Amino acid sequence: MDAFTYIDGRLLCEGVPASALADRFGTPLYVYSRATLEGHFDRLSSAFAALGPLVCFSVKSCSNLHVLRVLVTRGAGLDVVSGGELARARRAGCPDGRIVFAGVGKSRDEIAAAMDPPIGWFNAESEQELDAIAEVAGRRATGEDRRPRVALRVNPQVAPDVHAYTATGVKGAKFGVDFDEARRLFDRFGTGARAPITLDGLHLHIGSPIYETGPYVEAIRGTLALVHDLAARGHAVRSLNIGGGFGADYQSARSPSARDYAEAIVPLLRERVGAGLRVLLEPGRTIAANAGILLTRVRYTKTVPGPAGPKRIVIADAGMQTLIRPSLYGAFHFVWPTDPGVALVPARRAEDPGLPGLARADLVGPICESGDFLAKDRPLPPLAPGDLVAVFTAGAYGMSMASNYNSHPLPAEVLVEGADARLIRRRQTIDDMLAAEERG
Amino acid sequence: MDAFTYIDGRLLCEGVPASALADRFGTPLYVYSRATLEGHFDRLSSAFAALGPLVCFSVKSCSNLHVLRVLVTRGAGLDVVSGGELARARRAGCPDGRIVFAGVGKSRDEIAAAMDPPIGWFNAESEQELDAIAEVAGRRATGEDRRPRVALRVNPQVAPDVHAYTATGVKGAKFGVDFDEARRLFDRFGTGARAPITLDGLHLHIGSPIYETGPYVEAIRGTLALVHDLAARGHAVRSLNIGGGFGADYQSARSPSARDYAEAIVPLLRERVGAGLRVLLEPGRTIAANAGILLTRVRYTKTVPGPAGPKRIVIADAGMQTLIRPSLYGAFHFVWPTDPGVALVPARRAEDPGLPGLARADLVGPICESGDFLAKDRPLPPLAPGDLVAVFTAGAYGMSMASNYNSHPLPAEVLVEGADARLIRRRQTIDDMLAAEERG
Repeated sequence: MDAFTYIDGRLLCEGVPASALADRFGTPLYVYSRATLEGHFDRLSSAFAALGPLVCFSVKSCSNLHVLRVLVTRGAGLDVVSGGELARARRAGCPDGRIVFAGVGKSRDEIAAAMDPPIGWFNAESEQELDAIAEVAGRRATGEDRRPRVALRVNPQVAPDVHAYTATGVKGAKFGVDFDEARRLFDRFGTGARAPITLDGLHLHIGSPIYETGPYVEAIRGTLALVHDLAARGHAVRSLNIGGGFGADYQSARSPSARDYAEAIVPLLRERVGAGLRVLLEPGRTIAANAGILLTRVRYTKTVPGPAGPKRIVIADAGMQTLIRPSLYGAFHFVWPTDPGVALVPARRAEDPGLPGLARADLVGPICESGDFLAKDRPLPPLAPGDLVAVFTAGAYGMSMASNYNSHPLPAEVLVEGADARLIRRRQTIDDMLAAEERG
Repeated sequence: MDAFTYIDGRLLCEGVPASALADRFGTPLYVYSRATLEGHFDRLSSAFAALGPLVCFSVKSCSNLHVLRVLVTRGAGLDVVSGGELARARRAGCPDGRIVFAGVGKSRDEIAAAMDPPIGWFNAESEQELDAIAEVAGRRATGEDRRPRVALRVNPQVAPDVHAYTATGVKGAKFGVDFDEARRLFDRFGTGARAPITLDGLHLHIGSPIYETGPYVEAIRGTLALVHDLAARGHAVRSLNIGGGFGADYQSARSPSARDYAEAIVPLLRERVGAGLRVLLEPGRTIAANAGILLTRVRYTKTVPGPAGPKRIVIADAGMQTLIRPSLYGAFHFVWPTDPGVALVPARRAEDPGLPGLARADLVGPICESGDFLAKDRPLPPLAPGDLVAVFTAGAYGMSMASNYNSHPLPAEVLVEGADARLIRRRQTIDDMLAAEERG
């Protein structure tokens, strides 16, 4: 699952005690494990090896340049969704041909930036965006071989069992186009069309995290039927990007493995790949989530009258400004002290890890609103001011969604490699935070 | 309500066309009206004049230094909830005695910073925090007159009709202490106690936004009973901070006026004020919300099959990274094109402004998730790429909650003063955004 393990009653990040990291770098602190990032990437690549896919890590899930470099060095491409992420991909040393640019709202400036030099693929989400890409490409008047390569995002209209905010392939979603529209757009921009772009790919992404393989099978089958239709209309589909959305172990052994997903998906595509189809994957969470934890220190504890008796409140220095997933999605993160002693090491990460001597508590942050919590009504060991708590599976959609709400500076990030740890994002200072206004 | 008005079919911000601001400063752009900020502050001060209150603007609602300066110049104090906000208050030129430091998770460093020089009041939220303030004060060994002045936040256990995330005075909330605990803590830290702090105030805050006066009356009455109890135990209560939470006009004429709130509250406190009680208010939203709009430009439009027929999607350059309230709280913001022409000027801001020629649409942002929307299923005029849209009542909890999600740089902020506009926060660049990692 990951390289965050309790040994002798204390949490290690690979070979480094979590408490040593907090002492050295302060809290709140995001900590990533290089071995876990690489392990997850390798397992996914191996599982899908029969398809020889380009595995493009989803930059939005965990954007730090140094994390991206680790994965790019390992062979990953990068899935970007903005000009900012495109800049990240380039500064992380990602070869241009391994960059995929997705997202519903690309500006013309962002599109132009992605043509200079040309990236691997645009994933286009609407007819107007195809027009914009064609317009920008047309202005550049480059030769046939420099035409931007475009995949059209289609909405396969499957409804996986995920939070409404992260279900992206359902009817009425803002993403992609329906199959009828896809046929029409290939007639305008596909093989044989006189357009300054090469539309010869399809893209789909049905949501995240998806803890079952059925929705993938349904979505890919539907899309392959569309590939067949398009071929009949004379349009070649040379690439199929099946998106991401694979699960992560927010609780122990919660998610299917890379192999489970591959066993469902590979048989659907193997023959097509043999015939020349290029397959792309865009995993984010399944690689990064378990590769990161958030360390936060307890500032105060208190007991207040609750609706069902006394309620214990543990106030830490990380909150919704640091990790908004519990508040925004009602997401579960396992939280546990980093140094509970041998008797209180959890055998598994779960809502209730089933140990003696626990008492229910809310773990909350310093933000002035009731929506600011990391964990609610959770059986926890005793916690006192100064204690260090780990929020697990925080590597994806953690730091990348952090804010300055309540004027808290952004946290630092650290990458652990065996017995070493290095700062990969220095903690924001108050001066940093105010600079754009001071000069304003 | 505010100084954002349609004249001859186009939106003016005080004397400046919204479109001119977007052309000059780019989008997404937060625009504030100085006259509206001042007008709201003045109306509140006048309405409560009989209590001679210190009106401390809630910095978390709208944190820009230049906005704070406008209000401080007008006589406001500032309510801060972190060391970052304390730095803002000082850089905005707020006199120390007019600064109130609230929040459940103050660190010892933040507490020390607020004693050097001493601010007006700490609002303490727990016994451990009182101990921390006393400990830091004790180390400083200052004279009697330099003792930090502390108000204890109590939870009056009233349940106004607001989003669960912004109901802060309900049973089981992380905020404050119950009345029994308050009595005990005054015995420890109040009049006559040998503590290096002066605990002689009470603080309450019941939530936000509260569109009725009843919960205030209930909470203040309850707290006055506590004041009576404490007096009987020999503890003077010299200040009462009644918090904030007053409403704003997200829809036209939605909120009670400052005078409505004052008419309910002033009679409860007038006599006590005559006897020496100092009253503090902490309004944020009611001053700032209507004083700001968010300008966003349409990038693409599309029509997709929805569950109930074709659905129009308008994709703009602002999204949940710019304004998270619709996504996080299900909050309503009125959205309308800035230049709709005279026939389509809305007579009121409402879910459906009742004009001819409208069609329902979702206004969404560029972020790659379905939770990224500004307005859902709203009757809107026709919109095309390049059109400029105003998101109204965005001055509070807008920019202060913005993030870099999907690696979008933070927006710029502009302050309009009559016919002039000046940049009060320059737009973040990609280089700014990556600096902390490049040096990491």
